Amino acid sequence: MVQPILIDGRWQAANDCGTFQAYNPQTGEALTEVYPLSTWTDCDRALSAAHDAFTLLRHIEPRRLGDFLETFAEHIEQRADELVSMAHIETALPESPRLAEVELPRTTGQLRQAAAATSDGSWAMPTIDTKAGIRSCLLPLGPIVVLGPNNFPLAFNSISGGDFAAAIAAGNPVIAKANSSHPATTRMLAEEALAAVQSVGLPPATVQLLYRTAHEDGCRLVADPRVGATAYTGSRTSGLRLKAAAEKAGKPIYLELSSINPVIILPGAIHQRGSRIAESLTDSCLLGTGQFCTNPGMIVLLAGEATERFIDELVDRFKSRPHGTLLSAGVARSLGESILAIVGAGASVLAGGRADSNRGYHYENTLLRVAAGRFLENSRAFQTEAFGNANLIVVAQDVDQLQQLIERLEGNLTGCFYSDTSGADDALYDRLEPWLRGRVGRLLNDKPPTGVAVSPAMNHGGPFPSTGHPGFTAVGLPAALRRFAMLACYDNVRPERLPPPLGDKNPTGRMWRQIDGTWSRDDVPA
Amino acid sequence: MVQPILIDGRWQAANDCGTFQAYNPQTGEALTEVYPLSTWTDCDRALSAAHDAFTLLRHIEPRRLGDFLETFAEHIEQRADELVSMAHIETALPESPRLAEVELPRTTGQLRQAAAATSDGSWAMPTIDTKAGIRSCLLPLGPIVVLGPNNFPLAFNSISGGDFAAAIAAGNPVIAKANSSHPATTRMLAEEALAAVQSVGLPPATVQLLYRTAHEDGCRLVADPRVGATAYTGSRTSGLRLKAAAEKAGKPIYLELSSINPVIILPGAIHQRGSRIAESLTDSCLLGTGQFCTNPGMIVLLAGEATERFIDELVDRFKSRPHGTLLSAGVARSLGESILAIVGAGASVLAGGRADSNRGYHYENTLLRVAAGRFLENSRAFQTEAFGNANLIVVAQDVDQLQQLIERLEGNLTGCFYSDTSGADDALYDRLEPWLRGRVGRLLNDKPPTGVAVSPAMNHGGPFPSTGHPGFTAVGLPAALRRFAMLACYDNVRPERLPPPLGDKNPTGRMWRQIDGTWSRDDVPA
Repeated sequence: MVQPILIDGRWQAANDCGTFQAYNPQTGEALTEVYPLSTWTDCDRALSAAHDAFTLLRHIEPRRLGDFLETFAEHIEQRADELVSMAHIETALPESPRLAEVELPRTTGQLRQAAAATSDGSWAMPTIDTKAGIRSCLLPLGPIVVLGPNNFPLAFNSISGGDFAAAIAAGNPVIAKANSSHPATTRMLAEEALAAVQSVGLPPATVQLLYRTAHEDGCRLVADPRVGATAYTGSRTSGLRLKAAAEKAGKPIYLELSSINPVIILPGAIHQRGSRIAESLTDSCLLGTGQFCTNPGMIVLLAGEATERFIDELVDRFKSRPHGTLLSAGVARSLGESILAIVGAGASVLAGGRADSNRGYHYENTLLRVAAGRFLENSRAFQTEAFGNANLIVVAQDVDQLQQLIERLEGNLTGCFYSDTSGADDALYDRLEPWLRGRVGRLLNDKPPTGVAVSPAMNHGGPFPSTGHPGFTAVGLPAALRRFAMLACYDNVRPERLPPPLGDKNPTGRMWRQIDGTWSRDDVPA
Repeated sequence: MVQPILIDGRWQAANDCGTFQAYNPQTGEALTEVYPLSTWTDCDRALSAAHDAFTLLRHIEPRRLGDFLETFAEHIEQRADELVSMAHIETALPESPRLAEVELPRTTGQLRQAAAATSDGSWAMPTIDTKAGIRSCLLPLGPIVVLGPNNFPLAFNSISGGDFAAAIAAGNPVIAKANSSHPATTRMLAEEALAAVQSVGLPPATVQLLYRTAHEDGCRLVADPRVGATAYTGSRTSGLRLKAAAEKAGKPIYLELSSINPVIILPGAIHQRGSRIAESLTDSCLLGTGQFCTNPGMIVLLAGEATERFIDELVDRFKSRPHGTLLSAGVARSLGESILAIVGAGASVLAGGRADSNRGYHYENTLLRVAAGRFLENSRAFQTEAFGNANLIVVAQDVDQLQQLIERLEGNLTGCFYSDTSGADDALYDRLEPWLRGRVGRLLNDKPPTGVAVSPAMNHGGPFPSTGHPGFTAVGLPAALRRFAMLACYDNVRPERLPPPLGDKNPTGRMWRQIDGTWSRDDVPA
């Protein structure tokens, strides 16, 4: 039996033109459930239903969206064991602590933070000019298409993750497109989302699910007039195809594409605490078998004896750690291809470098090395993202070369400096920091980039090609909500016709609004 | 002699591949000054200089950018008579009140508001999470290419207008591309901008000027790796070409493309004050010979006897008003073509409809009419922007038809409802407003859309194709600055390395920052 899709509140047979199955990455064997490859007919049905749901959602109190997000979080917790077990089968990510103690609580935490953000309402940045009689705020944009990645089956899942939570909290229905590597986890999450929609009484099409479409239908979907915007996390190739289609139609699309997250370790830091850095960096490199958006794919060092010892330490650690399982055959294949490309451009293999021929999807923990001079000759090739447990060390001969290397970096989600804590690296830091700053969304000191706190100050974003726009973040509330909104201005509109955030009275009593230049939680002064 | 271009602080000969002259719209005669059509060599020199200037600007205190903007405003005022006179010659816009009393003060006012915004610093929305050790704010993005429109030679000029002021205030150098219809006005403004740059001691390439490039070089310019972003106001055709080029390269581009700004006059309003509305709407339609981005290009009415009388009144006014001069031969030609397209689709001509064959660029005040039923058959053709003194009346038979019409509208900068002030139209308003709301950036009640106040709550923006992104405004400070910035996050960065807006101490004492969820002007609590 082919699994049904979720359209307009009902699980119904897809109008499919094929099917697919997911695979157990540990064994390489196909799982039993069969999922549909939807035709445009399914997309069209979802779009129409979402369009109608959006019309209804506009009149629903934000508090009820908050209730939905809270209820959904509770449902996920009630089904936690089953979800964790299925996510493990489909992704090979460890049940504990990764899925059960880290990712699932992060998922429900995000949903609850989103609930708080929508109930509070400050995300919409209401701006009131009483003298000019002009008031504006962000309003929901329309149905949001969410395409989630393979590497966080819960916390970035199309139907439960950060983009989903932000899109709903901003008042939009979501059309989720499952990631093909974990459809059963996604199905279970969609079941719980639907139960929460029903329990709160939201329009049935607030949450819909398709499993897979042809590329051309995906492009048509994100460009459809009924769509408000799209959020995509995944490979650069697919992302750029969707970007071109959406932008040609004038539709906003927020993409998280790829990032090698350079980590620059200055000499004083190696001198001061090289072994500790090597240890924590190895943890970060191999976390989730290296399949983090913020994996430190490139480690940049200045040549020297201590540097060679530091590299040796990294190599030992990479060799001695057991290697994890990769998410899919596609990830394993792509990782192998990327390593080949980087080696082909002139990097040497310090550790690993071969696929593990045991059953399932594995690759040896791999550490590559190239001189910065060689890097500069072909900086594009050496910035190939090797998604998985492979990392590249680049050794610069001097500071000029190091600076040139930074200047050649593409846009990244993160960039990190390790430096001596007593000041020995400060001049170097001051010289190099401005060059890195403009190329990364999040700049770190003295810690690896793999932790992405759900903080209002977080930027999980960055310059192209790490994302599609340098001004937005996918993680961190309430900022992530602003992607799924339009700026709506009211000029001379009669008071009784203003939306609640723009009325004289503060509708929640705690909404931050900018009134005549002052941020305030008060009512508009009479 | 071919006029020089402004590169890296010096007026120098262009590497040109042709020349052009502007025309006096009142006579149709070429003006004497000859301007260069730059080759890519000029673009490349400007880009390199801007890139270097940006590196320096990052270390300059925002207060000095404010000084520049203030000084520039003073220079403009000192040369006001000459600027107004030249702008009049090049655009035929009336010297008084339009240029001298309205547009020039608006221009200097914008520069001063931008100066205040950069000095205050709140625009960057510093967000501080003390518990997580994460802090973020907006930082300047890089050189901004500004391409200004023909219809505001001062207030939207590439080198003095709203986009220019916002780009500079956000900390970026500007490469201005003059509008070909008013190069001498632009040259004079650039002279004053350079004098202000020199007087304040900013990097010389903070402000640069090219006059014209080939289309392909324009596309290459906005996509260049050295560019931060582009701001464009102008025709939809050119804008979409630039949009495709910039977005393919992952470069943000903010566009203001076209808008017909529907005005819906409900029956009660006509009954209550039809003549007054007809008068103020005629003023708005013919203001600046209809060459406003927010010109009410489409007037939507419900069929009835009073509606027919209202239309007769509009027709009388359109016929009795003298017609103004259009900005250029191109505008006149395009206006004629648009009117032909709309008439060709089935509209009838109620007034005007012919070019005025006197010398210079003129068209009769033109009022067209079509039934909503006909409109719905070919809604695209009837939404052709007729930039100039021509407006289309659409008469709906009933409310269903009116709603269908609104649902077919493309994205617009503005949309307006006139309604009875004692409540007779309220049910109708409530039904129709949600449909219009999502299609316009600024929703008005009971006033025409042509006034665009420089208010923090303004949205001079709207859904595609009126602009390229529904979340940003080109007018209104400080919001307009946020287009030219990237979100820069600092994670675990040592306190002395944070940029001033993110330090514990409030750097200006009046910067609004969000500290642990609370907007505040205080220092971070110890």
